[in-house]
Amino acid sequence: MTPPSGIVTILTDFGLTEPFVGVMKGVMSGIDPGLRFIDLCHGIPAHDVRAGAFWLARALSWFAPGTTHLCVVDPGVGTARRALVAECRGQYFVAPDNGLLAPVFAGATPAIYSAPVPDTASRTFHGRDVFAPLAAKVASGRAAPSSLGVATTEFERLASPSLAVASDGSLSGRIVVVDHFGNLMSDLNPGDGLLRGRVRIGSQWYPLVSSYQDANGGVAALVNSWGVIEVFCDKGRACDRLGLGTGSQVRFEPEP
Amino acid sequence: MTPPSGIVTILTDFGLTEPFVGVMKGVMSGIDPGLRFIDLCHGIPAHDVRAGAFWLARALSWFAPGTTHLCVVDPGVGTARRALVAECRGQYFVAPDNGLLAPVFAGATPAIYSAPVPDTASRTFHGRDVFAPLAAKVASGRAAPSSLGVATTEFERLASPSLAVASDGSLSGRIVVVDHFGNLMSDLNPGDGLLRGRVRIGSQWYPLVSSYQDANGGVAALVNSWGVIEVFCDKGRACDRLGLGTGSQVRFEPEP
Amino acid sequence: MTPPSGIVTILTDFGLTEPFVGVMKGVMSGIDPGLRFIDLCHGIPAHDVRAGAFWLARALSWFAPGTTHLCVVDPGVGTARRALVAECRGQYFVAPDNGLLAPVFAGATPAIYSAPVPDTASRTFHGRDVFAPLAAKVASGRAAPSSLGVATTEFERLASPSLAVASDGSLSGRIVVVDHFGNLMSDLNPGDGLLRGRVRIGSQWYPLVSSYQDANGGVAALVNSWGVIEVFCDKGRACDRLGLGTGSQVRFEPEP
Repeated sequence: MTPPSGIVTILTDFGLTEPFVGVMKGVMSGIDPGLRFIDLCHGIPAHDVRAGAFWLARALSWFAPGTTHLCVVDPGVGTARRALVAECRGQYFVAPDNGLLAPVFAGATPAIYSAPVPDTASRTFHGRDVFAPLAAKVASGRAAPSSLGVATTEFERLASPSLAVASDGSLSGRIVVVDHFGNLMSDLNPGDGLLRGRVRIGSQWYPLVSSYQDANGGVAALVNSWGVIEVFCDKGRACDRLGLGTGSQVRFEPEP
Repeated sequence: MTPPSGIVTILTDFGLTEPFVGVMKGVMSGIDPGLRFIDLCHGIPAHDVRAGAFWLARALSWFAPGTTHLCVVDPGVGTARRALVAECRGQYFVAPDNGLLAPVFAGATPAIYSAPVPDTASRTFHGRDVFAPLAAKVASGRAAPSSLGVATTEFERLASPSLAVASDGSLSGRIVVVDHFGNLMSDLNPGDGLLRGRVRIGSQWYPLVSSYQDANGGVAALVNSWGVIEVFCDKGRACDRLGLGTGSQVRFEPEP
Repeated sequence: MTPPSGIVTILTDFGLTEPFVGVMKGVMSGIDPGLRFIDLCHGIPAHDVRAGAFWLARALSWFAPGTTHLCVVDPGVGTARRALVAECRGQYFVAPDNGLLAPVFAGATPAIYSAPVPDTASRTFHGRDVFAPLAAKVASGRAAPSSLGVATTEFERLASPSLAVASDGSLSGRIVVVDHFGNLMSDLNPGDGLLRGRVRIGSQWYPLVSSYQDANGGVAALVNSWGVIEVFCDKGRACDRLGLGTGSQVRFEPEP
């Protein structure tokens, strides 16, 4: 087991307008004042578990072993959905059991524990009352994940995964994130190595290029720094230019 | 006196688009590089002292004794309004004297000091030039609050508190916050214990329920995780659905 | 050489909706877990190098000697533009060579190094792959700037600086920032000392006053807490009231 490093990343759909995230840090600092916090992001669209799972899975390889990730996108707060604590890929995870952790667990050998929800927890803010205390205990080394819940091998998957791979190597999926720059990020992860081909959204095809400038002020696609196919507009906002958002169908066709 | 912990929370209406908050942290780190900062929130609506006071009062119980809270919602910057340093409820507070701290002081026994504004302070950014240095000195233990100003028992109250309690136990107040999820938070704080009743906004009544899912996709009210009555829309945005914002009148009528 | 303090400020146009900034902190913590981060701001308008340079130059004097500033507003990511590491004014800077650092270097004696871009860097996120590692190495003291690149005296200037000084002491420039409160900040930096005069935008003249309240609910100008002339609306949003944004021409005429 990798010892926890005392660093807690936080990913939520809470935004930063109200003190929801700040209070979670207060709770964690109360358990161990030495914990250090890194905001992963709090701008996940409200209740969008798929977008939260997308970013968590893509972000975690940039953190050192022993990091604890506190992830709260929780449309089921107050229901019977489980609270999970897990060790996986040398890092720790605390999240509701709603698919958020499914891409992290995929292809790995996670140790997963289902933690009880305390009677004193509110019905509307488990980020503060359930998940933050669990994360602080794990990250500080005050409690091993195995001591915080019941071992389990079951966990929720993401509803209707969209990615499909055809026999000719083409990939079908959809846009899962529209980022700050208006770029359209898909769940198409074509793997490593030199890639040639074209990308379709709706009836339009876009060439696959290597950098933003290759599009010369126009729209094109590339494998972005997160390893997924992204449709972008050089010096512009692809989402506005194309009138597209999350959920749009995307297809990648490799060059024969 | 609780020793200061070296943790400074920051609550402002400055937003995060410009480096106003970052520079305040620079000033504080210059006084003590060991200070640790927790952003409470910076999305208080511009000049909305009532919303700032609401969140500060509801957030502080989640922080450990010895925490210092730096609060700057300051429509009177550059005028003669006083700068306050206080110890209250085992924690420390630095803020302009405009009502921000009134709910914290209510029912407590605060030690309040009025601090001078240095001649070198700008006329437009006391967060940086007055309040951040005071907070850093308090939080680091470099100066006791009593050494930073003149003891006082007077402080500004919030203008026109809206909360009224009728003889039949009904409560009247108003919406003070529309949160990131579109929930409408009132200043109606019905206290602990089992609560049954209904909530009115305008001519509509809403049942009081226990969790978001109880509303089954509709609009209802509950006592939220901050102890106040909130009108929400399950899986939707109550502010949009009802066309309401801050200032709207709210009434709670307990079940007889 | 001032020893690096282990504090890294971060200024970007990445926003906080996605984990771009969080992942940069992950990369830096992986190099030195003891580094401390202060978000300067992440709301620089996309690709607006001039606004990024404006804020960096105005913010840095509020940070202690030895601070490292990581600045990424990088419309040229993936092109041949250079990556700079510099020591200047007792602080450290890591940024793309596109004018971001020009105001910091102006009138100072910077030691500038041009750092190579690793072959492993992505083509679209040098903040994570190039600049964050450089900043972590500098801020932690693991590498001196001189060991990270080739010494150079050349650096990009900002395109078409707008500021002009006439023989009668009048200044001409433009609005470079519209802040969170709707204030219009110009690049007119009239220097220290008592200042009397008036400010023109379009065909309208505004008096120069000392504090927001002096405008009595109307529009006026002042030298703000960052030393530049700002046009504001007391208790309102000047940008909306005047229908103006960045790029607008501004003229200051001193009183004879």
